[in-house]
Amino acid sequence: MLSEYYFDNAATTIISESALRTYNETCLEYMGNPSANHREGQKAHRRLEECREAFASRLGVKSSQIFFTSGATESISIVLSSLLWAKSPGHIIMSQIEHEAVLSWIGLLKEKGWKITTLRAKGGFVDPAELEESITEATRLVAVMMVNNVTGSIQDIGSMVKIVRKKESEFGRKIFFFSDCVQALGKLPFSLRELDVDGASFSSHKIAGPRGIGALYLKRGDIQSLARAGGQEKGVRGGTENLPAIASFTRALLDCPETSSDVEMIYEHTRRKFEENGIKVLSPDHDRSPYVLSITTELPSEVLTRMLIDEGWCVSSGSACSNNAKGKGEGVLQAMGFSARDSKGAIRISFFHYSRLDRALELADAIIRKVREF
Amino acid sequence: MLSEYYFDNAATTIISESALRTYNETCLEYMGNPSANHREGQKAHRRLEECREAFASRLGVKSSQIFFTSGATESISIVLSSLLWAKSPGHIIMSQIEHEAVLSWIGLLKEKGWKITTLRAKGGFVDPAELEESITEATRLVAVMMVNNVTGSIQDIGSMVKIVRKKESEFGRKIFFFSDCVQALGKLPFSLRELDVDGASFSSHKIAGPRGIGALYLKRGDIQSLARAGGQEKGVRGGTENLPAIASFTRALLDCPETSSDVEMIYEHTRRKFEENGIKVLSPDHDRSPYVLSITTELPSEVLTRMLIDEGWCVSSGSACSNNAKGKGEGVLQAMGFSARDSKGAIRISFFHYSRLDRALELADAIIRKVREF
Repeated sequence: MLSEYYFDNAATTIISESALRTYNETCLEYMGNPSANHREGQKAHRRLEECREAFASRLGVKSSQIFFTSGATESISIVLSSLLWAKSPGHIIMSQIEHEAVLSWIGLLKEKGWKITTLRAKGGFVDPAELEESITEATRLVAVMMVNNVTGSIQDIGSMVKIVRKKESEFGRKIFFFSDCVQALGKLPFSLRELDVDGASFSSHKIAGPRGIGALYLKRGDIQSLARAGGQEKGVRGGTENLPAIASFTRALLDCPETSSDVEMIYEHTRRKFEENGIKVLSPDHDRSPYVLSITTELPSEVLTRMLIDEGWCVSSGSACSNNAKGKGEGVLQAMGFSARDSKGAIRISFFHYSRLDRALELADAIIRKVREF
Repeated sequence: MLSEYYFDNAATTIISESALRTYNETCLEYMGNPSANHREGQKAHRRLEECREAFASRLGVKSSQIFFTSGATESISIVLSSLLWAKSPGHIIMSQIEHEAVLSWIGLLKEKGWKITTLRAKGGFVDPAELEESITEATRLVAVMMVNNVTGSIQDIGSMVKIVRKKESEFGRKIFFFSDCVQALGKLPFSLRELDVDGASFSSHKIAGPRGIGALYLKRGDIQSLARAGGQEKGVRGGTENLPAIASFTRALLDCPETSSDVEMIYEHTRRKFEENGIKVLSPDHDRSPYVLSITTELPSEVLTRMLIDEGWCVSSGSACSNNAKGKGEGVLQAMGFSARDSKGAIRISFFHYSRLDRALELADAIIRKVREF
């Protein structure tokens, strides 16, 4: 079974049987366009709203606050591109360890006159005090991810939102707090309501759901998209609703266990094995997700991953998305204060609910052996 | 079998067995992230490029000109939003009978200072001479769809592109010709190369492929997207590639027959039946797709569709997408010069390869009977 040797779950997971079954059933049973007025359309529309209700309920939010999109990248784009409606550009703040789907907006926004402050994340963590100092009267949006995809560090979103709220009342202007929650959904407990973020993005294929589907949480249940297209998703995200994928994504979310004690156990044992054998762990030892374990060795990561790949393992040298933009995963590690050398040797091992302790330890053995041979 | 009674195929089709099988097989056999460097990622990447090759080959274009997106709406957005990079706004021209996914961009573009000319389409057809008169030195983009989704009228794209090319050399500036080809793909023969358009959009779920996947053709193989995200699809469309849906969409396209003689036959018989029974046909009698038959009766379309729905038929009063934006399908008909009364009574019957003549004639009978009873 391939999933035993697959430790690149932060890039994408293997779709679960139940999610795929739900996809198929929904394709066959609900084939109308949810926006069509006829019986098949209405039936599909009802199913869509049931999914939205179940999805929202699992997150403890209102269904009117959940919008289905084609993936986290689109969820992020909807929020960041909405800034383009502004009559005059303002200031935004984002962490340097955001996913490329966030960071890549810097180019256009700067071109349009926006001022952008990027926050470092020493040891993996954005410092709320640094955020506080960066906020100005012109700040319109702050983007800090919940769980970093390279090291699994968990950001103190709660404290940061409190700072933003304080500044809001000081300046008398709304500041939108956006948090990319792709690596948190279905893996860590969090309450969007208690954290009080304004927007959050989610991806299905990181939790054993299908590709091409994601969600956007909007606290106020509204945002001005660049264009409404067919007006689907209340005009926030146009295009025919991908009901089979929505139902399957919802199934995958509901299938995620409420606690991750098994993954926690695998993580702890694997991490300890590395530490006991002198392999440096880049993931922090507190406020970290048990789903992402980053280590570094003296071997260049492309050499070590190549060796591991040849033995049938799947691990990553950075984030898959940054493979298209060479060296960007290293940029995140350097923003965390790791040396160029540590960054160059970084290997990411990422778990999911189907991961097995014995295989994880075998993988650790393989890595330790190769480093010694070197 | 539901598909027999389903005549809303211009809104969405029923996914085919082979497309769904391909989706499942691809999910199970290619589970890596195509952007990941390990074996599973590379295997997925190869499959992705095979699909792109097959897709492009069917369209007679280069694989480097095809970009997979989350659907036609996103394909359109990539092209129209790229205008926002312009240092100073210019002029664009679009037909009034475009899909809402195009028309809904007017709001933002106007706000950003773009001048927009919209072209009428008397009898269903945009007049190339009217386009010619509208082009100015400031014109940067022209958008005219290939087949209208409300009446099936086929636009003379070839002549229009020629006019645009002439104006380009006259003014010494590039004018991007975009054509939404959603209702043409897999249904009508056309050559993007011969037509010489710069960009075209396609949707999978209109040809019995899965939802949530589409394609964008770019003649020059490049466009400046608002943000590159993870750099997938050469930076034109970021986000993890939806390989199962891409493979399934490609399968659905290859499954489409090269000629549509069966649908043509169903269309002709059904159309004649309406005409012989005094039902007014809105679809033109030349340069029309056999996949969309628009009629109008004295009954308000929502009343007649309701009655038909109660008998188990699926037909549409306009386009499904415009149901969210009330009355917009009527707007397209009025732009074609039809009276408010004709527009209010419009019913769209749309076919696909699984449509059957006997059921289509039964549907026509049902409509004729109801109109007489009224």
